[in-house]
Amino acid sequence: MSLTVIGTMAFDALETPFGKVDRIIGGSATYVAWSASNFTNAIQQVSIVGGDFPQAEFDKLAARGVNFDGVEVVKDGKSFFWSGRYHMDMNTRDTLVTELNVLEHFNPQLPASYQNTEFLMLGNLVPAVQMSVINQLQNRPKLIVLDTMNFWMEVAMDDLKAVLKKVDVLMVNDGEARQLSGEYSLVKAAAKIHEMGPQFVIIKKGEHGALLFSKGEVFYAPALPLEEVFDPTGAGDTFAGGFIGHLAKTRDISFENMKSAIIVGSAMASFCVEKFGSERLQEITKEDIENRIRQFVNLVDFKIDL
Amino acid sequence: MSLTVIGTMAFDALETPFGKVDRIIGGSATYVAWSASNFTNAIQQVSIVGGDFPQAEFDKLAARGVNFDGVEVVKDGKSFFWSGRYHMDMNTRDTLVTELNVLEHFNPQLPASYQNTEFLMLGNLVPAVQMSVINQLQNRPKLIVLDTMNFWMEVAMDDLKAVLKKVDVLMVNDGEARQLSGEYSLVKAAAKIHEMGPQFVIIKKGEHGALLFSKGEVFYAPALPLEEVFDPTGAGDTFAGGFIGHLAKTRDISFENMKSAIIVGSAMASFCVEKFGSERLQEITKEDIENRIRQFVNLVDFKIDL
Repeated sequence: MSLTVIGTMAFDALETPFGKVDRIIGGSATYVAWSASNFTNAIQQVSIVGGDFPQAEFDKLAARGVNFDGVEVVKDGKSFFWSGRYHMDMNTRDTLVTELNVLEHFNPQLPASYQNTEFLMLGNLVPAVQMSVINQLQNRPKLIVLDTMNFWMEVAMDDLKAVLKKVDVLMVNDGEARQLSGEYSLVKAAAKIHEMGPQFVIIKKGEHGALLFSKGEVFYAPALPLEEVFDPTGAGDTFAGGFIGHLAKTRDISFENMKSAIIVGSAMASFCVEKFGSERLQEITKEDIENRIRQFVNLVDFKIDL
Repeated sequence: MSLTVIGTMAFDALETPFGKVDRIIGGSATYVAWSASNFTNAIQQVSIVGGDFPQAEFDKLAARGVNFDGVEVVKDGKSFFWSGRYHMDMNTRDTLVTELNVLEHFNPQLPASYQNTEFLMLGNLVPAVQMSVINQLQNRPKLIVLDTMNFWMEVAMDDLKAVLKKVDVLMVNDGEARQLSGEYSLVKAAAKIHEMGPQFVIIKKGEHGALLFSKGEVFYAPALPLEEVFDPTGAGDTFAGGFIGHLAKTRDISFENMKSAIIVGSAMASFCVEKFGSERLQEITKEDIENRIRQFVNLVDFKIDL
């Protein structure tokens, strides 16, 4: 039940209405690994960092079963750095600084030990790099999940469309689904995206939950109404980690089990936003997660006599 | 199980990205009655119209059990008229024309036959008129539901706060909940609104569903993802009608049953937006409604092993 995760491991500087941090650990692959490692301990990371990335961060994740053979360390390079400021609604943010650093020359080489991976999570990255990883796998994984963003639709749409043909699940937010499909209705957008390749389309709507579309079927996962969203950074990657972690644990890729996986992902994301960075994800226990999932069960529970 | 509904009966002119109508029947009490009359046939309407309001419209609703003794007809007056244009997202609209006409001097007098009403739906109107109706009832109804809007928070906040102290359920959209409470988080907003009076707070989020808060409890009702929202006019009133119609039918005002009532309201609203005005509501059958409610059951159905 091995899971290979491709994404960034990086530094973030964040400003939210509730506070400010100068330089904390971030990156899509980091969040996916913290989240997924609650459900599977056979995670294989693919990323690139500079010599400035703390060994202690590797050690903490390694203790949870994460393998870093696929992470290139550029000793005299600097890790990817992103800085952003969130608005009051926490759904919109301004990017203040983007320093690609070592990410500019990221050309991942999959270790032989990563062959035969069953689950592949392609975190948000330049589509050509995502494609290169798919092409290096001699056997197609049981499930390939792709995360992407509006930026790649603007600068690399052809590459993105080529990757879309190869994946099973696309994970985007509502604005991105509309941009990719040219359709305002999310039902129509999902139908068009199915035609581009992915059999499953997950549309994330932040505080409004998430939708899962498979051909002709739809599932609506709520988001837990929270007193406070402290820092939304990494919530999408944490969602992805819970989603694919649950699938890797259960090895069941049916529509029915994907619905459960989305609830697990939503529960994990609801922890992520409670503190800065991955801090809260590092604290939570199995019991915390189970209690949170129970809250989701109760949140949408109703009975109706027809 | 009588239900008294106070609101407008009016003419609307509408423009949506999908079409345009010049003068159709609208008004909050009209939509509530069309929706609620699927669940109860003891509806007592309180409104005011001009001599221009078609008798045929009264007749159609009377055939479904709606009583109009509480509707004042000003023979030489004109009915309330509203005209609006919707933007592509269908969540925002511009008001083009508002002609109060007879509504300017609306001073409802409850017929003696409306006393002992069990359920009271106060549609969106000037708060002083809502209060006058409450004060005319010699016995407090089993449940009072209030709909209101941002406009009254701007021009009549003190009157609105006085009415809030008298009602059991407040129904507002997310922007209005924030404006009324001064809190961005909907969890905190609901907590503040509870302190203002209503034990139950329903926050409508359009295509993102609705939240029901009772002290310490929360329920998330999804909205059905639709291929097309043709015309959202009246969706909120149709939701209210389904909600209170289900409660009036079942006579159970527990939190558990309110959850079901919100699903019924959401199902009714999902019909309303399929055509202009109340057209779709006039077509649907009991079977259509049951099938739609089943879609809601399936939409949020998941199983998870803990």
